[in-house]
Amino acid sequence: MSKRLTAWGATLVGLLLMLATNALADDAKPAPTVTDVATAIDTVWVLVTAFLVFFMQAGFACVEAGFTRAKNVCNILAKNFIDFCVSSLMFFLIGYAIMFGDGNDYLGWTGFGLSEAKNPSGVPLYAYWLFQAVFAGTAATIVSGAMAERTRFIAYLLYTFVISAIIYPVIGHWTWGGGWLSTMGFADFAGSTVVHATGGWIALVGALMLGPRIGKYGPDGKPKAITGHNIPLASVGVMILWFGWFGFNPGSTLGAVGSNTEAIGLIAINTNLAAAAGGLFATIAVWMIYGKPDVSMLFNGVLAGLVAITAPCAYVSPSAAIVIGAIGGVLVVLGVMLLDKLHIDDPVGAVPVHCLNGIWGTLAVGIWGQKALGLANDGLLHGGGLGQLGVQALGVIACGAYAVISMAIIFSIIKAIVGLRVTPEEELRGLDIDEHGMEGYADFQIFTTR
Amino acid sequence: MSKRLTAWGATLVGLLLMLATNALADDAKPAPTVTDVATAIDTVWVLVTAFLVFFMQAGFACVEAGFTRAKNVCNILAKNFIDFCVSSLMFFLIGYAIMFGDGNDYLGWTGFGLSEAKNPSGVPLYAYWLFQAVFAGTAATIVSGAMAERTRFIAYLLYTFVISAIIYPVIGHWTWGGGWLSTMGFADFAGSTVVHATGGWIALVGALMLGPRIGKYGPDGKPKAITGHNIPLASVGVMILWFGWFGFNPGSTLGAVGSNTEAIGLIAINTNLAAAAGGLFATIAVWMIYGKPDVSMLFNGVLAGLVAITAPCAYVSPSAAIVIGAIGGVLVVLGVMLLDKLHIDDPVGAVPVHCLNGIWGTLAVGIWGQKALGLANDGLLHGGGLGQLGVQALGVIACGAYAVISMAIIFSIIKAIVGLRVTPEEELRGLDIDEHGMEGYADFQIFTTR
Amino acid sequence: MSKRLTAWGATLVGLLLMLATNALADDAKPAPTVTDVATAIDTVWVLVTAFLVFFMQAGFACVEAGFTRAKNVCNILAKNFIDFCVSSLMFFLIGYAIMFGDGNDYLGWTGFGLSEAKNPSGVPLYAYWLFQAVFAGTAATIVSGAMAERTRFIAYLLYTFVISAIIYPVIGHWTWGGGWLSTMGFADFAGSTVVHATGGWIALVGALMLGPRIGKYGPDGKPKAITGHNIPLASVGVMILWFGWFGFNPGSTLGAVGSNTEAIGLIAINTNLAAAAGGLFATIAVWMIYGKPDVSMLFNGVLAGLVAITAPCAYVSPSAAIVIGAIGGVLVVLGVMLLDKLHIDDPVGAVPVHCLNGIWGTLAVGIWGQKALGLANDGLLHGGGLGQLGVQALGVIACGAYAVISMAIIFSIIKAIVGLRVTPEEELRGLDIDEHGMEGYADFQIFTTR
Repeated sequence: MSKRLTAWGATLVGLLLMLATNALADDAKPAPTVTDVATAIDTVWVLVTAFLVFFMQAGFACVEAGFTRAKNVCNILAKNFIDFCVSSLMFFLIGYAIMFGDGNDYLGWTGFGLSEAKNPSGVPLYAYWLFQAVFAGTAATIVSGAMAERTRFIAYLLYTFVISAIIYPVIGHWTWGGGWLSTMGFADFAGSTVVHATGGWIALVGALMLGPRIGKYGPDGKPKAITGHNIPLASVGVMILWFGWFGFNPGSTLGAVGSNTEAIGLIAINTNLAAAAGGLFATIAVWMIYGKPDVSMLFNGVLAGLVAITAPCAYVSPSAAIVIGAIGGVLVVLGVMLLDKLHIDDPVGAVPVHCLNGIWGTLAVGIWGQKALGLANDGLLHGGGLGQLGVQALGVIACGAYAVISMAIIFSIIKAIVGLRVTPEEELRGLDIDEHGMEGYADFQIFTTR
Repeated sequence: MSKRLTAWGATLVGLLLMLATNALADDAKPAPTVTDVATAIDTVWVLVTAFLVFFMQAGFACVEAGFTRAKNVCNILAKNFIDFCVSSLMFFLIGYAIMFGDGNDYLGWTGFGLSEAKNPSGVPLYAYWLFQAVFAGTAATIVSGAMAERTRFIAYLLYTFVISAIIYPVIGHWTWGGGWLSTMGFADFAGSTVVHATGGWIALVGALMLGPRIGKYGPDGKPKAITGHNIPLASVGVMILWFGWFGFNPGSTLGAVGSNTEAIGLIAINTNLAAAAGGLFATIAVWMIYGKPDVSMLFNGVLAGLVAITAPCAYVSPSAAIVIGAIGGVLVVLGVMLLDKLHIDDPVGAVPVHCLNGIWGTLAVGIWGQKALGLANDGLLHGGGLGQLGVQALGVIACGAYAVISMAIIFSIIKAIVGLRVTPEEELRGLDIDEHGMEGYADFQIFTTR
Repeated sequence: MSKRLTAWGATLVGLLLMLATNALADDAKPAPTVTDVATAIDTVWVLVTAFLVFFMQAGFACVEAGFTRAKNVCNILAKNFIDFCVSSLMFFLIGYAIMFGDGNDYLGWTGFGLSEAKNPSGVPLYAYWLFQAVFAGTAATIVSGAMAERTRFIAYLLYTFVISAIIYPVIGHWTWGGGWLSTMGFADFAGSTVVHATGGWIALVGALMLGPRIGKYGPDGKPKAITGHNIPLASVGVMILWFGWFGFNPGSTLGAVGSNTEAIGLIAINTNLAAAAGGLFATIAVWMIYGKPDVSMLFNGVLAGLVAITAPCAYVSPSAAIVIGAIGGVLVVLGVMLLDKLHIDDPVGAVPVHCLNGIWGTLAVGIWGQKALGLANDGLLHGGGLGQLGVQALGVIACGAYAVISMAIIFSIIKAIVGLRVTPEEELRGLDIDEHGMEGYADFQIFTTR
């Protein structure tokens, strides 16, 4: 007996010695556990991808500035900056509470200013907030392109308060915050509908309410191409957006450990292949239709592929991603032609890229989607009685109708209070001079009569 | 006795079997331990954030080039490149040893060329060095903006050797390298004083010693706005800086595991909210003062918020971050006006952004700072008898005085040897032609008489 | 006996309780193991660095656009975009199978479309594919710069199919896919030869087969400098490339855990120091030779340092990295002069940067290389009877000969089918108008007669 006691005793002493050594080696902080380390890596993943999504703000700014005229360049840049500033502050004070707070199927209502806010993720609240905030900022900034070159700065500023505080968070609550669409099984992995179609629908409403730019449609009704003033700037913007989308889609797993390790690889390859296919097939389409490979269509094709794969990126195979992106690339070319037919003036193609392809991507989940192998954070595809495609269509219609109706009301109110559009004189002279008292290219000889 | 031997023997066999199994499973390398994995994630965090901070070099280059005139664009770009090249090499050979080496309260003196260098971090020395080196590069490059459009290239080149080898590392030793200010409890989490105010003070000394650009102040003493030549370039630069600041501040935890997991989320949200508030409130301020929302003030407001939150980012709540950033945004507008009053010509606003807001952010730690919940790597706020605000003020004054006096001497020596300023003819013609024998925009029709 | 049974029973109950508690705490997914977490961090590292390498596409686009003329800017941007789109799709369908599939010493032949593809890495296949795909895209895009301003868009498009499907993957199989050069001990850590010299050799073949641009060499045979049209754009490009190289080299460890934790720090510092030394010494060289610090040589010196350190980055000390980068910086200046002597017109310096320094970096492994301390994924330097330097030289020659011969054939076929070069009229008018029906800077007054 005493021998066994001795043995146990020795073991105990050994263990204590081990613990003591450990304590000596690192006396202030306890050794991390596996769970600590797993949470750390998930948090690093969420933050780094959030930073990439933030950087998409630079992409949007460059694309919109490059695709419009030199005389409005300060204005469009100012809008792209101020909308992110305002949406960050609003999404902190109000938006997050509406999107993720406790409430009902349609609205959250707790956690204003992140005070005792709910955190549905496995990472710290503030990290999760940042990831969601840069998404809100993306939805907000999509709109500026379609309303470019004629919208008053103050009107745009007011709009950004509303979209980031209320409009976007409500759709976010329906779909990602536990609301009615998520209960029905609506599947939009990274936001083809939630972010892009929402922004795209609002862009459409804005463009319709403003009317076309002076000179866009001749007396004969024929559309005139008002080409962008700085294609290299636009191209840098598209590259930045593609880069940032590697945060947007793969980051939406909200983690990298366990089954997410497989998932982030799948999502990254799908994102890249859909973008590549979108760019190539838009180029082929425009080449066949117009006889030349228009570079701006190549750019918009890449963006179309990216928007289209955003909803299904975690649910489809790489081959399906190529098909989804390729169709997106063709759709954007047709969409630009359709808008021109309808006399809707969208200077940068925000509606074909974000609205049309947001819808396409959301529906594609219903066509090719499957429970993604190894996807942890939801990946449930069912849709109840309607079938998945039916639920996807319902989500597209519901979110679209809500965005269009609510923003039509908001824009009408803004129009009544401060006016939406600059005067024709200001528009012809360019918004930079009158709205901001400065010019974008002080040393360059510029044509300002276009 | 033999039983105990048997017991020990069995244990030994068991251990060997375990080891053997392990060896079979993965025969070259041992399975990682939790500590291995924790160190790996900390290292990944430090490296990825260091890469982001490196990218801020592109941001500074774009901002400074965009805010100055086309005829000097190659020169300012060359300065922004060469200062990072030189400071990388100098910080490797000399700077790191002075900043982190063993020595006294004022100076380190071991580890030149990283040979047997001290490593106060929990990540490998080389990873830690890179993170510190990109900070040194940031301090160096701030100065070029305030001295733009009139400083000789050779003079600037000489200055970069000195700041990265000696001037910056000494301040770094006082504050982050175990020197006297750190002993007193001076708290500057990511470098409002150490990096930004240091760069900003030197910028002020440089601008004063050079005098204003020809034509900046009329015969009546009234300042003339010499506007930037490429606002889109400047805006891309600001976006890159904001993006890079997500490395600058959150990366300064030097790790992501344990209590740092909470901290990096807090720091990231604070960084974003302060930048947003800075941009919005600078816009409001300039709108109220001048009647129009000047875009360059929006940009500088964002940067002001970022600089101001750099010291307190880990010690304050998100609400405090908004207040700190908002005040920073207003301060930068007032600072620009003040410099104009004082006839100090700082072409890009480096002094109001980095010096003024570096001071503001450092003092803000003394106002809103608290021991940050869950912050591992220091977070001690005390300040002994002076109180925290007193220690912060002492640090601001000491670092500022040291930077001003030492660089006044250095610039005087450089002036005596090679001259600080180009000739009036060269300045009027632009520095690109005479200093570099090339032009920035060979295909564009440029106004060069501004 | 019963007491022992009781003890064992109690232990068993305790274990079950522990398991149950664990199950209750987290009932859907099992707690991650250390291996799970290690794989997660390796995967995050590979993906994040792959994103950075992707972003180099933007860098190449900016450098090539900035260093050429305004009238060809849409064309060069279109080429930079379309080559990445095509190479992504081709490397998915065909290239990966040839590079990493089972086969023989010269060619892989399994895993087309990634179906049952081999995965030699420790991270998920799709993540590994993305990392490899962005490398393939880099090799492809290097070529466009040397062939700029005179190559037909359709010819370039056809070339990109071939290089990414076959040419590059074959060299990749020899060196990184288990082929004959890897068996011999050829060491090219991140691709000085595999990616850069391959791209550079093809660039040389392309430039030779096209002949110089109209006006590049006067009737007297003297070269005329056709300077770039947008130096700020080029400078942003170089900064993006430097930033992306922190993915290119450190990411090539394919992991961050264990001995890779040390390695990624070493590789990152080496990458940075070689770039810095390249930039500084190229500036000094051009200053001494031509009397002025030409900015484009500073840029190309940085790139030269980066290319040169790509092969040896994991095998050499930081001091050696400085020497390798410095020599690379001088080499690029001499290389540009040599090409001008030989009347080979390479508008952006792709051959001196990527070919010459790719060779230099590969040979440098044989001079300074050592089994890197703590490097996990290969780091074996032997080279059998030839000695390491001999094997390095053999690899340089073999890969170069293969690239030159195969692409000379391919370009000849493309030339025969669609023609390589635009007409002299199109070249003088600029490729944007005729090839794409658009212009890069619609609002700017441009000189188009250069």
